[in-house]
Amino acid sequence: MSLTLTSLQHIPLIRHGDNLADILLNSLRETNMELQDNDILVIAQKIISKAEGRMVSLAGVEPSQRARELGLQTEKDPRLVELMLRESNEVVRFRKGVIVVEHKLGFICANAGIDHSNVAPLPEGLAVMDDWVLLLPENPDASAKKLREEINKKTGKTIGVMIIDSHGRAWRNGTVGICIGLSGIPAVVDERGWKDLFGYTLKATIVGVADELAAAASLVMGQAAEGTPAAHVRGFPYPLEEGSLQDLIRPKEMDMFR
Amino acid sequence: MSLTLTSLQHIPLIRHGDNLADILLNSLRETNMELQDNDILVIAQKIISKAEGRMVSLAGVEPSQRARELGLQTEKDPRLVELMLRESNEVVRFRKGVIVVEHKLGFICANAGIDHSNVAPLPEGLAVMDDWVLLLPENPDASAKKLREEINKKTGKTIGVMIIDSHGRAWRNGTVGICIGLSGIPAVVDERGWKDLFGYTLKATIVGVADELAAAASLVMGQAAEGTPAAHVRGFPYPLEEGSLQDLIRPKEMDMFR
Repeated sequence: MSLTLTSLQHIPLIRHGDNLADILLNSLRETNMELQDNDILVIAQKIISKAEGRMVSLAGVEPSQRARELGLQTEKDPRLVELMLRESNEVVRFRKGVIVVEHKLGFICANAGIDHSNVAPLPEGLAVMDDWVLLLPENPDASAKKLREEINKKTGKTIGVMIIDSHGRAWRNGTVGICIGLSGIPAVVDERGWKDLFGYTLKATIVGVADELAAAASLVMGQAAEGTPAAHVRGFPYPLEEGSLQDLIRPKEMDMFR
Repeated sequence: MSLTLTSLQHIPLIRHGDNLADILLNSLRETNMELQDNDILVIAQKIISKAEGRMVSLAGVEPSQRARELGLQTEKDPRLVELMLRESNEVVRFRKGVIVVEHKLGFICANAGIDHSNVAPLPEGLAVMDDWVLLLPENPDASAKKLREEINKKTGKTIGVMIIDSHGRAWRNGTVGICIGLSGIPAVVDERGWKDLFGYTLKATIVGVADELAAAASLVMGQAAEGTPAAHVRGFPYPLEEGSLQDLIRPKEMDMFR
C-alpha cells in the first residue's frame, strides 16, 4: 500500500476573485497528472484566503485600547493585534512575539493564523509590504466543499479537498502542517473497538488522519520561495467520507491545558 | 516533486533479540523494493521496544504510595502508574483515564508512552494479556542509529531511520504519528531567513519535518490489525543530515502550557 504526494507546479500568484478550480486543474494538466476518483487535493490556506479577498491593510485598522495594551506587552503592532482579537474567541496565552488564541474557527493557534509573508506582490525593500496581512478563510470547510464540487463538476471525478496551514505545537519545536478545513475526506477515524493483532481491543485510538495528511502534504509543499501551494495525493488509505474541521477540535471542557 | 510512502509487508511478530535490520531487509525484498540512497525507513516504536526486550509484566511491579494514590485518582492500575512514574521526569496533568507526563526522553506525552495493545501473542480472552505492557525504547536515537548503520553495512546504501509513536494533542482530537527517535535525517529544518516569493524574509519558520514525516508514515502503517509496523519513504524533500530527538523538544523555559 502506497501513498504518493506530489507538489503541483505552475500555480500563478493568486489574486482576489481567481477561480482556484480552474487554476488547480490547469496545474494538474501542466504537471501531466490526471485526477482519479479518490484522489485528494491539498491546498495551502494562503491561496484560498487570497482568492477570497482576505487581505487586510493595517493602515485601515483602528486598534482598540485592549489591542494597544496587548501590543505593548507582546511587542506587536497594535493594529495587527486588533485583527487577531477580532479573529478570535479568546486569548489563551501571550508573551513577547506571540499571542496564542482560540480562533473563531474553534482551534487554538498562534497569532490567529494571520499571515504576513507572501501577501503582497511587491519587490523587496518596500516598507509598504509590511502593511498587508492575510486572514484565514472565513469558513474553510465551505471553501473546501465549493472547490471539491466545482472540480467534481468539471472532471466527473469524486475527490477530497483539504485546506492546510502550519501550526506550532505546545511542547515541540517546529511547525507542522495541520488541517483547517476539508470536504469529502474524514477528519478523524475512530478505531476504538477495532481488535489488534492479538484480538485485544484497542482502547483509545481515534486517529487524526486529516492532520496526518496535512503534515504529509506540508512536506512536499514547502514553506518559502519554492511556492508550491497545493499538492496532489493518491492512495489515502481510508474511505473518502465527509468530515469537518469541528471533528478535529477537542471540546473546551475536555481541554487540560488552557 | 513526489514523496511516496509504502507500508512494508511480511514483518513477523517481533520478539526480544530479533534482528530488525535483517527482518526489514527481508520485508523489502518480499515487497519487491530495493533500497536506494536517501530512502528512509520509518519503524513503529512497538517493534523496536519488543526487539529490545522492553516488555514488563505488571505482576512483578510493586506500586509506590504515590502510584497507588494517582492510580485511585485516575482509575488506573497502580502497577501501571508505577511504571509511568518510573519512566517520567514529572507528571504534568492527570485526570480519569490519562496521566500526562514529561517522559524521561524529554517529550510530553500521555501515559509515558506505555503500550498495552499488541504486546502479548496470546489468543483472545486470556486475562493474562492485560499483564504485559511495553515501555518505550531506552534511547530511540541510538536504536535508530544502530539500525541505520547495520542496514548501511548490509546494503551499501545511505538511508535515514526514524522511530515513531502515536501521540494525542492538547487541543485537537485524534492521535498523530510523531517522531521519538531518528538517525540520518534532520528533525527540524530552520527556514528562518529564507525569503518568500516576494523577497520578504520569513520570520518564524522552523519546520518540524521529522514529525511531518512521522505523521505521513503513520497513515500507511495503520493502527490496528493490519500490522504494518514499518514504512519505506522515497522522495523526502530535505537533505539527509543527522538529527536528534532533542531538536524537536521545546525547552521547558519556553513552554507556555505547563
